[in-house]
Amino acid sequence: MNSSSYQNLIQRSEEIALYSSTSALLGWDQETGIPKKGLNYRADQCAFLGGKAHQLFTDPLVGDWISSSEDEGSFTDSTELANLREWRWSYDRAVKLSTEFIEEAERIRSHAMSAWAESRKKNDFKIFSPHLEKIIKINQRKAESYGYSDHPYDALLEGYERGSRTEMINELFDGLKPALREIGEAAAHKSANSSSQALKGDFPINAQEKFNQEIAKSFGFDFDAGRIDEAVHPFCSGIAPGDTRLTTRYDANDFSSSLYGVLHEVGHGLYEQGLPVEKFATPSGKAVSLGIHESQSRLWENHVGRAPSFWKFWYPRAVHFFPSLQEITQEEIISSTLRSEPSFIRVEADEATYDLHIILRFEIEKDLISGDLKVAELPECWNAKFMEFFGLRVENDADGCLQDIHWSMGALGYFPTYTIGNLGAAQLYAKAIEDDPEISNQLNGGEYSKLLDWLRIKIHSKGSVLLPDDLIKDATGESLSESYHLKHLQSRYL
Amino acid sequence: MNSSSYQNLIQRSEEIALYSSTSALLGWDQETGIPKKGLNYRADQCAFLGGKAHQLFTDPLVGDWISSSEDEGSFTDSTELANLREWRWSYDRAVKLSTEFIEEAERIRSHAMSAWAESRKKNDFKIFSPHLEKIIKINQRKAESYGYSDHPYDALLEGYERGSRTEMINELFDGLKPALREIGEAAAHKSANSSSQALKGDFPINAQEKFNQEIAKSFGFDFDAGRIDEAVHPFCSGIAPGDTRLTTRYDANDFSSSLYGVLHEVGHGLYEQGLPVEKFATPSGKAVSLGIHESQSRLWENHVGRAPSFWKFWYPRAVHFFPSLQEITQEEIISSTLRSEPSFIRVEADEATYDLHIILRFEIEKDLISGDLKVAELPECWNAKFMEFFGLRVENDADGCLQDIHWSMGALGYFPTYTIGNLGAAQLYAKAIEDDPEISNQLNGGEYSKLLDWLRIKIHSKGSVLLPDDLIKDATGESLSESYHLKHLQSRYL
Repeated sequence: MNSSSYQNLIQRSEEIALYSSTSALLGWDQETGIPKKGLNYRADQCAFLGGKAHQLFTDPLVGDWISSSEDEGSFTDSTELANLREWRWSYDRAVKLSTEFIEEAERIRSHAMSAWAESRKKNDFKIFSPHLEKIIKINQRKAESYGYSDHPYDALLEGYERGSRTEMINELFDGLKPALREIGEAAAHKSANSSSQALKGDFPINAQEKFNQEIAKSFGFDFDAGRIDEAVHPFCSGIAPGDTRLTTRYDANDFSSSLYGVLHEVGHGLYEQGLPVEKFATPSGKAVSLGIHESQSRLWENHVGRAPSFWKFWYPRAVHFFPSLQEITQEEIISSTLRSEPSFIRVEADEATYDLHIILRFEIEKDLISGDLKVAELPECWNAKFMEFFGLRVENDADGCLQDIHWSMGALGYFPTYTIGNLGAAQLYAKAIEDDPEISNQLNGGEYSKLLDWLRIKIHSKGSVLLPDDLIKDATGESLSESYHLKHLQSRYL
Repeated sequence: MNSSSYQNLIQRSEEIALYSSTSALLGWDQETGIPKKGLNYRADQCAFLGGKAHQLFTDPLVGDWISSSEDEGSFTDSTELANLREWRWSYDRAVKLSTEFIEEAERIRSHAMSAWAESRKKNDFKIFSPHLEKIIKINQRKAESYGYSDHPYDALLEGYERGSRTEMINELFDGLKPALREIGEAAAHKSANSSSQALKGDFPINAQEKFNQEIAKSFGFDFDAGRIDEAVHPFCSGIAPGDTRLTTRYDANDFSSSLYGVLHEVGHGLYEQGLPVEKFATPSGKAVSLGIHESQSRLWENHVGRAPSFWKFWYPRAVHFFPSLQEITQEEIISSTLRSEPSFIRVEADEATYDLHIILRFEIEKDLISGDLKVAELPECWNAKFMEFFGLRVENDADGCLQDIHWSMGALGYFPTYTIGNLGAAQLYAKAIEDDPEISNQLNGGEYSKLLDWLRIKIHSKGSVLLPDDLIKDATGESLSESYHLKHLQSRYL
């Protein structure tokens, strides 16, 4: 049923979506093309639009509309119920922050992002550290405003992954750590004979673009509704209906860097392109959590893109685009893309070591938020943990605590969703293969429609109708578990 | 002096600028990169932001603030006086259109632009014609709302070129026509011996980009505050402080197409980058008219870029970027870039024939607005006039009445500003050379700082403090006149 309060909420959501989709374009442009001297004013624009959207949503009328829709109690449609559930949850959080706070946070974020880019480029932590201090402070204020029972980090984490708690992540990660170390050691041992230089060569960027596009298209990414650009940090932004944009970065000496970046972002992009477009402006039509989002990207990147079947099909095309690959056999490519060793950069880390990068960040950001760790101590703390986790000495902060964009974006509480995504990817992929044996046959022939269909039905089309854990249960018959991910890694590396 | 009403107007202007600069980015993105399926929602975003800006400016409070500032009568500062003059003029016009009208116009415009692009690509006027009908109708409604004494076209023209009237343009163009025809014939005769194929060859787009950038930089375009992208239609957008974007299009067989496109847009870009940044959000800080804008682009494109001195300096660099040019002498390049013959495409037309393209469009759009010409009759009318003006038979509408983006943007009344710009370019350039003889010496050595300084002082830094004709008088000592432009063309072509 559709009460007038509910209709008012829909209309308000549509107006807010006009602001937030425009903000998304400003954000994309800031990462891909804005001239340096335009950054200051861009910060004002972002603050302004962010403030407008916040103001519209925290309008007391919105609270009244939600309450009166709830009081009616006559909603039975799952979409309507999900919209109400999400409006309630978001509204109760949003009203805890003033518009001035949102505008201030936006402005801090915009400036911090450009300072971070410069800081990383110049390998000079001092450029970024005053901005990071502001970011931590405003996140602490945010956590206090939202409220929490155990740990201030809970209040932030919940914003990225509904239903998650610091204590749950602590337990999950404590359980994963020893298993991951064992896998990591075995994987490094197994990789000792394959050369890290096997995939190095001369790979014109133009040819990389074409090869990546051909694969992205075959996965099902719709280039009439999306594009791929170059940026310092790879990301996917679902800007608006029919407009999903990915970025990657190119290394002219290693095509696998941009390729696997694209496969990952295409996974995100397929999710965005598969959301129910008619519900775009309302909560039920949005991606439900970052963990679910990451399950999509990791599934296409690792379960599809690093499987031997992938290269069995794509090897001849790769040789077509990069003639120098003729000197390398198909088997050498497969073992190179599965190669594992401790390394510095998270986004380039192999599957066997990736989650350790996440656990390290989680331990650090939790302490930054609680105040147990000061920003000034960050590089030292990072480097010490890095030695402990990976046995590597970090020589420069650009390859250490400055490597990720997240903190500059003010996104604390985001990192654990990467490992949650890895668990989801393995669990969903295992179930898909089991549900439809045709999927495996297709993969061998470089076709992906049946796998995509399964994901469209089980995940993409659902938007936020189900909360993350319910969505996983609905798709796979059980709650999210680490067992599929560990089994996958063990079968690949032990 | 600064009354509180005046301060309120400043603040309101700043808020409106946040909307309009964001709209400018949406517009730029729509021309350079938006995926096809994103166009529908983009139309909604543009309508929404355009409506917001209009609403803020037509708020009755704004009218009160303007009136009470005027009543105080105590402003003496030229910037403040110009702001008041412009607010008054714009407000009186803006309140004549409702927010619903603006939103409708924005939506029509967005859809018409994408239909035009498709129509032109497929050379099918029928795709565009229903949109053009809507565009004409909404412009007629606009003209009726604004009001006029002689011709509805006056009401539109005034929006692009303050102080211009249809009757003035009629007179100017009637006077120019015979002189231009004489010049055109002489120029074609003079060019008969130079081959139209001289500049054809193999010019990798990558090298064109680099060559164009090097010249743009030498002219003074600041790439930390701007960029150049590829688009179907070349344009310049001064999006925000520190963010001026140009576009061009590339022909791999003819480097001069993108080069002269860039020189032209750089002229616009230098004006935008030279406006007083601290006044960005207020009327006095904006470019004063399209005619003045075009005077800047034509000055750099034609008076600088097609002068023999230009190629005397840049020939060796051109050969460096395009080795195949070695087969052509410097003199051949000079005569090729000055080559004149009747041709179909305005943006590629040579100086000697360019203004005839404008006069043709003026005659047509005036009649479209008055209703004397129907949209369905447009192709036939265009082609008949084209035969009359140029002696050429238009074989397809893509090279005829579909070639320009302007009508799809709803911009009727815009075209005459191109010829006004040509007059201004010649008059300003002649005065600059006379004022500072060092300018000519610099040009021979590929340096442009003194010419740019002169334009910065006389034109760019003035923003809208002086109205167009006063600005020309202030810079050159006399009103805008056609004599400099004709003298320039005669000396080049007779």
